[in-house]
Amino acid sequence: MGRLIGVGTGPGDPELLTVKAVRALGEADVVAYFAKAGRNGNGRAVVEGLLKADLVELPLYYPVTTEIDKDDEAYKRQITAFYNASAERVAAHLEAGRTVAVLSEGDPLFYGSYMHLHVRLAGRFPAEVIPGITAMSGCWSVAGLPLVQGDEVLSVLPGTMGEAELQRRLADTEAAVIMKVGRNLPKIRRALAAAGRLDAAVYVERGTMKNAAMVPLGEKPDDAAPYFSLVLVPGWKDRPGAGERS
Amino acid sequence: MGRLIGVGTGPGDPELLTVKAVRALGEADVVAYFAKAGRNGNGRAVVEGLLKADLVELPLYYPVTTEIDKDDEAYKRQITAFYNASAERVAAHLEAGRTVAVLSEGDPLFYGSYMHLHVRLAGRFPAEVIPGITAMSGCWSVAGLPLVQGDEVLSVLPGTMGEAELQRRLADTEAAVIMKVGRNLPKIRRALAAAGRLDAAVYVERGTMKNAAMVPLGEKPDDAAPYFSLVLVPGWKDRPGAGERS
Ligand SMILES: C[S@@+](CC[C@H](N)C(=O)[O-])C[C@H]1O[C@@H](n2cnc3c(N)ncnc32)[C@H](O)[C@@H]1O
Ligand SMILES: C[S@@+](CC[C@H](N)C(=O)[O-])C[C@H]1O[C@@H](n2cnc3c(N)ncnc32)[C@H](O)[C@@H]1O
Repeated sequence: MGRLIGVGTGPGDPELLTVKAVRALGEADVVAYFAKAGRNGNGRAVVEGLLKADLVELPLYYPVTTEIDKDDEAYKRQITAFYNASAERVAAHLEAGRTVAVLSEGDPLFYGSYMHLHVRLAGRFPAEVIPGITAMSGCWSVAGLPLVQGDEVLSVLPGTMGEAELQRRLADTEAAVIMKVGRNLPKIRRALAAAGRLDAAVYVERGTMKNAAMVPLGEKPDDAAPYFSLVLVPGWKDRPGAGERS
Repeated sequence: MGRLIGVGTGPGDPELLTVKAVRALGEADVVAYFAKAGRNGNGRAVVEGLLKADLVELPLYYPVTTEIDKDDEAYKRQITAFYNASAERVAAHLEAGRTVAVLSEGDPLFYGSYMHLHVRLAGRFPAEVIPGITAMSGCWSVAGLPLVQGDEVLSVLPGTMGEAELQRRLADTEAAVIMKVGRNLPKIRRALAAAGRLDAAVYVERGTMKNAAMVPLGEKPDDAAPYFSLVLVPGWKDRPGAGERS
C-alpha cells in the first residue's frame, strides 16, 4: 500500500520549504495538487526542480463554478462530488503502492484544500502531514512586525464574514489576521475603522514572493486586492518603538 | 555593519527547519539564544550540526525570577533591564560587522522572545526575520487534525487567561488553540467543558519531538503538563469522518 503525504509548500518563497518537505518531494512517485483549470497553481511552481525525473503529475482541476452562488446547494453538491472524485484518483495511486505527495500552499491543515483529501483517505491509507510556513507567518516576517506576545489573543478572521461580525471580533482581540481579502477590502477597511484598529493595520500582498508588496492599510487604494493578500493587525501596543514606521 | 537575523527553529523536529534557516545558520558568525540559566534551550539543540566551526555562541540567560510575581513592577523592571542588556550584547557584535542569528523556537514573531531584540535593534541595524513552523502547526500535523477551513474563525488563546474569559472565547469561535498549558491544565479543562467543547479537544505535548505524545484532553490526567504542550480544538464539525478516532 502506498503512502499519502500532505506537503506544506509555504507562502511562496521556495526557500521557505522545510528540509522535510524537500526530502518527501524528492522521494514521491506522484505529486498531486489542486488548481484552477488551465493553471498550475503556486504550490506547483514552488517545488519546481525538487521532483523525481519520472514523477507522475496529478493536477486536480476545480470545476468551473463562477456562475453559482457559493451558498447554493448546487455548488455544495458539485464541489463535494469533485473532492470525492479527486480522492478516488489519489486512492488509485495509493492502492498501486505509490507514494503520493499532495502539495498544499502554506500549511496543509490550516484552511488548505488538502484537508478534503485527508479526511477522505487518512483512515484508509497510511498518511502523514508535513507542516508548512503559513501565509500569515510569511507576511508578518516580511513586514518585520511582531504580531502577538505574552498573554495576548490572536484572532484569525476570514474577510468573507459579515461586516458587523468582523467589527465585533476586531474590537475583541489584541491581534488579528484577516485572510481572504480580495474583493472584501472595502468592507474590511470599514470594519477596522469602526473597531478603532485601522491605524495599526498592515496590508501585505504576495508575501515572500518575488513581487511582494506591503503598505499601511490606510494608504492602500480601495481596488480589489489579489488572491494572495492578507491584513495584519499587530498586538503588543506598548512595545518599544511602536508607532514608528519600519 | 553586521546583520541581525531572527531564525525560526520550528516546533522541535530538526527537519522542520526551512531551507532558508539552514542556509542562514551556516553563514552566521554569531548565534544567540535565550535560555534558562544552565540550560541550552530547545532551539539550540535543533540547530546542532548546522553551525560554522568557528562560530561565537551567545547564550542569553534569563534572570532567575521565580520568587517574584509576574505582575509585579519589580519583575517588569528586571525583565526589561535584561532585554535591554541582551540587545546591547547583540548590538556589540553587529557593530563589529558580524552576522548574528538569533534562534527562536517556532516562529520568531509569534509569541517569541526574539521580538524583544527585534523591537530594540531593527531600527539601528539591517534586520531580517526567517519565519518558522509554529508549535501549533507542528502539533495539528502530528495529530493529523484539520484545524480550520472555509470561512471559520481561529482563536489562539493563552492558557494563562482567566477562566471565565477563556470560557467565553471558547464558546465564541469555531476553532481554537490554547498555548501555555503547564499548570493551567485543570482550568483549561473546566473552561472547555463549560463551553461545550471538551469532547473535541486534543492535548499534544512535545509535538514533532522524539518523545511527542497526544491524547483526547478528556482522557489526560489533571497533573501539570510540560512547558511544550498545547490544546487543539478543531473546527469543521461536519467534515467527512468527524467523530471517528484517528
Ligand atoms: C485558502 S487560504 C490558504 C491558507 C494556507 N493554507 C496557509 O497556511 O496560510 C488562502 C488565503 O491565504 C492568504 N495567502 C496565501 N498566500 C499568501 C501570500 N503569499 N501573501 C499573502 N496572503 C496569502 C490569502 O489571504 C488567501 O486568501
Ligand atoms: C512562548 S510560546 C512560543 C511559541 C512559538 N514562537 C511558536 O511559534 O509556536 C511557548 C508555547 O508554545 C507551545 N509549544 C512550543 N513548542 C511546542 C511543542 N513542540 N509542542 C507543544 N507545544 C509547544 C507551548 O504551549 C508553550 O507554552
